[in-house]
Amino acid sequence: MEVISKNNSHGGVQGVYRHASDITMCEMTFALFLPPLGLTPPPVLWYLSGLTCNHSNVMEKGEYRRLAAELGIAIVCPDTSPRGENVPDEADNWQFGSGAGFYLDATEAPFSTNYKMYSYILNELTDLVAENFSVDMTRQGVFGHSMGGHGALVMAIRQPGRFKSCSAFAPIVQPMTADWSSSAFAKYLGEEKETWRAYDAVALIEDGYRFPSILVDQGEADSFLESGLRPWLLEKACKDAGMKLDLRIHPGFDHSYFFISTFMEDHLRWHSSSL
Amino acid sequence: MEVISKNNSHGGVQGVYRHASDITMCEMTFALFLPPLGLTPPPVLWYLSGLTCNHSNVMEKGEYRRLAAELGIAIVCPDTSPRGENVPDEADNWQFGSGAGFYLDATEAPFSTNYKMYSYILNELTDLVAENFSVDMTRQGVFGHSMGGHGALVMAIRQPGRFKSCSAFAPIVQPMTADWSSSAFAKYLGEEKETWRAYDAVALIEDGYRFPSILVDQGEADSFLESGLRPWLLEKACKDAGMKLDLRIHPGFDHSYFFISTFMEDHLRWHSSSL
Repeated sequence: MEVISKNNSHGGVQGVYRHASDITMCEMTFALFLPPLGLTPPPVLWYLSGLTCNHSNVMEKGEYRRLAAELGIAIVCPDTSPRGENVPDEADNWQFGSGAGFYLDATEAPFSTNYKMYSYILNELTDLVAENFSVDMTRQGVFGHSMGGHGALVMAIRQPGRFKSCSAFAPIVQPMTADWSSSAFAKYLGEEKETWRAYDAVALIEDGYRFPSILVDQGEADSFLESGLRPWLLEKACKDAGMKLDLRIHPGFDHSYFFISTFMEDHLRWHSSSL
Repeated sequence: MEVISKNNSHGGVQGVYRHASDITMCEMTFALFLPPLGLTPPPVLWYLSGLTCNHSNVMEKGEYRRLAAELGIAIVCPDTSPRGENVPDEADNWQFGSGAGFYLDATEAPFSTNYKMYSYILNELTDLVAENFSVDMTRQGVFGHSMGGHGALVMAIRQPGRFKSCSAFAPIVQPMTADWSSSAFAKYLGEEKETWRAYDAVALIEDGYRFPSILVDQGEADSFLESGLRPWLLEKACKDAGMKLDLRIHPGFDHSYFFISTFMEDHLRWHSSSL
């Protein structure tokens, strides 16, 4: 593992690291914030970013360090896809390929060689973090934004023993049917839609998967609300399943990091109370 | 004045605006954060950015909105230089021209046509802000980083009636003699160094200018500490002049926005107590 940068911040250390991944078959970069040393190793909170982002966007604009330092939480920010010369991509398509891994394991050639973000994060990157940092892997939470909100919901709902807390900013709650994800799902997973359900939060809940309690914040002025996000689909699925969802709609807020950073504090406190 | 973007954030509105400047003879962009509406218009705190930056860097990475909203302070972030096709520049030189206006009024051709950041901020942009936003221009403070710390010190020391508070992150305290500014000063102001003293904080204090009290934060691991920043020169000038300076050296901190954002809260409270 190579150290790209380490910066003191808010009493902790914000690092950026790179390593060769056996699962995505390319070099992967991630950011990790370690809070000030405490009496016990900190819990680990995974932040999954949205389309077009890499590890750095939320690191720069998310405003998580002040409170993560205060609460004593380590924050890991993975990249959103494999990248590199040998990774098949559609350079002009921001909804597929680089920056658009959708946190799934692709099954269709040529994408199945590299696009394995689900396994990469849950297995390889998890092991790497556990080996290289003094953190408590028995206490993990996951949250994310937009495509990363989708990733956080799917990971938590499929792995409720692994994650103790889950939240999302403006998540894609039903990517199987959303404008900006359904064509990517077809390319990554093939045309057989039954297999897509393993990466769709609403479908997973319909299929019997459960998570104790989820916090979702959504801006009412988000331009992707109707076409891509549709939190009411998650609300209905949770209601039908008797699953606890705290869905908050915020008038005037959009899809940007100005929205995320405003509610970051609430999310960190939400996770801290369960970790 | 054209609205480029407006985003709700922390109960206020972060805007980005563009206008044609008569002083810099080009289009200028600036960011302005308005806190939540209060009973009285908020004071105005100017943030001046460093080399290579524009209005957006601190807007994205400075983490000022949460507390500015709480304290009720408007934050204006101007660009760091004129820009555009008709503005003379040295494209490969990050210490001169675009992104490196040094908050002075150039006197040497061809730069004197556009590079008038001192007058632009103190006159034209001040008037524009006063006309277009509900803010209290009788309560103004100024702070900044690196080159912008230089700008903040010079503006406050030269205009103590105008600014009620001043602080800086890692400022260039004596740009006349610093590696990264002296050659720019020669191009902007000519070879007669007596004229440079009007834009040099240490020289201004030596020449009898005063400001009631200044806060300066400096990272001890800042790679520009010895060659460009040298806060001890400001410390000596203030001591000799009997001027109050709160200079804090922070072990392990560098020149980055991770440093700025860590101490942003202290600076906002510093200004708030005087505004």
